[in-house]
Amino acid sequence: MSPRIYTIAELKHFAFTVFVKMGCPEEDAQLAADALLAADVRGIDSHGVARLSGYVRLWEAKRINTRPVIRVVHETPGTATVDGDSGLGLVVAPKAMNIAIEKATSSGTGWVAVRNSNHFGIAGYHAMLALRHNMIGWAMTNASPLVAPTFSTERLLGTNPIAVAIPAGKQEPFILDMATTTAANGKLEILQRKNKEAPPGWIQTKDGRPSTNPHELKEGGALIPLGSDYEHGSHKGYGLGAMVDILSAVLSGANYGPWVPPFVAFLQPPADPVGLGIGHFLGAMRIDAFRPAEEFNHHMDNWLARFRSAKTIDGKDAVLIHGDPEREMTRKRLRDGVELNPNVEKDLKELAGRFGLSL
Amino acid sequence: MSPRIYTIAELKHFAFTVFVKMGCPEEDAQLAADALLAADVRGIDSHGVARLSGYVRLWEAKRINTRPVIRVVHETPGTATVDGDSGLGLVVAPKAMNIAIEKATSSGTGWVAVRNSNHFGIAGYHAMLALRHNMIGWAMTNASPLVAPTFSTERLLGTNPIAVAIPAGKQEPFILDMATTTAANGKLEILQRKNKEAPPGWIQTKDGRPSTNPHELKEGGALIPLGSDYEHGSHKGYGLGAMVDILSAVLSGANYGPWVPPFVAFLQPPADPVGLGIGHFLGAMRIDAFRPAEEFNHHMDNWLARFRSAKTIDGKDAVLIHGDPEREMTRKRLRDGVELNPNVEKDLKELAGRFGLSL
Repeated sequence: MSPRIYTIAELKHFAFTVFVKMGCPEEDAQLAADALLAADVRGIDSHGVARLSGYVRLWEAKRINTRPVIRVVHETPGTATVDGDSGLGLVVAPKAMNIAIEKATSSGTGWVAVRNSNHFGIAGYHAMLALRHNMIGWAMTNASPLVAPTFSTERLLGTNPIAVAIPAGKQEPFILDMATTTAANGKLEILQRKNKEAPPGWIQTKDGRPSTNPHELKEGGALIPLGSDYEHGSHKGYGLGAMVDILSAVLSGANYGPWVPPFVAFLQPPADPVGLGIGHFLGAMRIDAFRPAEEFNHHMDNWLARFRSAKTIDGKDAVLIHGDPEREMTRKRLRDGVELNPNVEKDLKELAGRFGLSL
Repeated sequence: MSPRIYTIAELKHFAFTVFVKMGCPEEDAQLAADALLAADVRGIDSHGVARLSGYVRLWEAKRINTRPVIRVVHETPGTATVDGDSGLGLVVAPKAMNIAIEKATSSGTGWVAVRNSNHFGIAGYHAMLALRHNMIGWAMTNASPLVAPTFSTERLLGTNPIAVAIPAGKQEPFILDMATTTAANGKLEILQRKNKEAPPGWIQTKDGRPSTNPHELKEGGALIPLGSDYEHGSHKGYGLGAMVDILSAVLSGANYGPWVPPFVAFLQPPADPVGLGIGHFLGAMRIDAFRPAEEFNHHMDNWLARFRSAKTIDGKDAVLIHGDPEREMTRKRLRDGVELNPNVEKDLKELAGRFGLSL
């Protein structure tokens, strides 16, 4: 039997319906489904519908509030701190990003620290919301601790992503969306399913020794910051992850470091929280707060054209431009749909059964 | 004969006098000497007095203006674009940073893009200027193209550093100051002097093959972005370096990518510039624009204490905290002085002879 192909539209509608069944207002459910499916559309399968049942379990554990009162608790002309009231990060973050965009409209740039939120899907989605206003968008979040600082055996940081979306003129935008680890957890999950070893430099054992076992995290091991080892700059990846943690949580009043509540509902949040929920940090910068937009667009197009046409190493087709692989995947998946991993499909069928939905 | 030990104060005074001889107003010369010596004090020997003769040669080549009229060419309440009038980056950047700090005072955050500047020494110095105002400081700059994007043989980016300085309460601040490459150029220079091979993953040949020859850049080779290879995330280091280039130059109107003028005076700037000089991007964020400072200080101290006391891998004394190694070096060098590399000492003696100074 050939595997079933799902369209993005039907998966998005399914996610929307599940969020409504969880009690989200329709508008929020729409937003959450859009943010969630942005991952599948862009080919980041670990952060899309594969996580839908995870959000449902967190809601069952009463760790997600589907009727949050999202409010600004502190502000200046160009900044705000937002309390997400334990809402879905998929809803809280886009709303906070809109505040950053409003602030940027009047002050040139706008920055919003968010506390009391939950996982927000892919960082790139939120950063990209700025593009339609001709602004540079920034999005960061902290996450469940899985990463060991350089020279440590303890898991003190999440994969803490940084996304920056920069508009252009005729060219498509520059979109950086990166975990601050050598490899994102999703890449390990792929190896686990295929029963393959991980390359050296991605993970360490619970004692901090190098490992290639993709199941090492279940044994108390840790992901390694970008750089892989000290000689290759892992203290830089660790520094970036630390910066994301501090901006997202120490600045907002969320939990940080090892106190960040786990995404999986079967693990309890630490009994001694240092803040509220998890934290995000979002920003928007108006292009014309620095330079007339036309000038910027012209030079940004030139930048992209120059890098895109750079000479390649023998055997490589093209130099990578950030955003290109995800755009190609988007075109493909909107046209051809997606085949789900069997475990993910089983998960979604169970959700369908439970909520009396069809899939 | 045992090597001569120089005090930081005498080296700073020497640099000050050289800048005055070049024609800098005394106040600017003071500022430039302070910024330059910050590198030696913190142990980043490649960016301190070792570069003084490089600045002199750029001035001789009429590429540095020692009497610049530094002006704001574009602004909003929270942003500005500054034209450095070909001044020393060591002078232009701190002045631009002060504008960012002023903007933050009224708007919550302040961001300044700088064009028409020159190399500004270590990024950390400028970011740290925000600390005395209880603000988070950011500093980035683009630089002479020495780095190849992932899959390319061409040198299109500089080592494009990112510095972020975050204040704390009783603890000392968190200071990240990193090149976006696996290894900074200064580390290669150390290997060259010692005639030692570089670790794999730092450099590539002109054809893009792996190399361990520390002289490879002279043969047309390139530095590699943080991550070392695609499998270990070099596209992330490349993405960060690209972001620094775009914010510093495409946003400000400076030269970007391969058009960035070289630091060494014996190489001519490209004949077809796309902007003015090199570019920086500086920011300041008021802590109390997000959260009462006392709350932040308390949690930042807790963050630092928790990470500092993390369990270490066997054989490692302590988990690295960003800023600690440089602070230890600062204490040592302010107390004991520094021994100069013989080539650097010879360089400085020549400068002394030329300007009729004693050293």
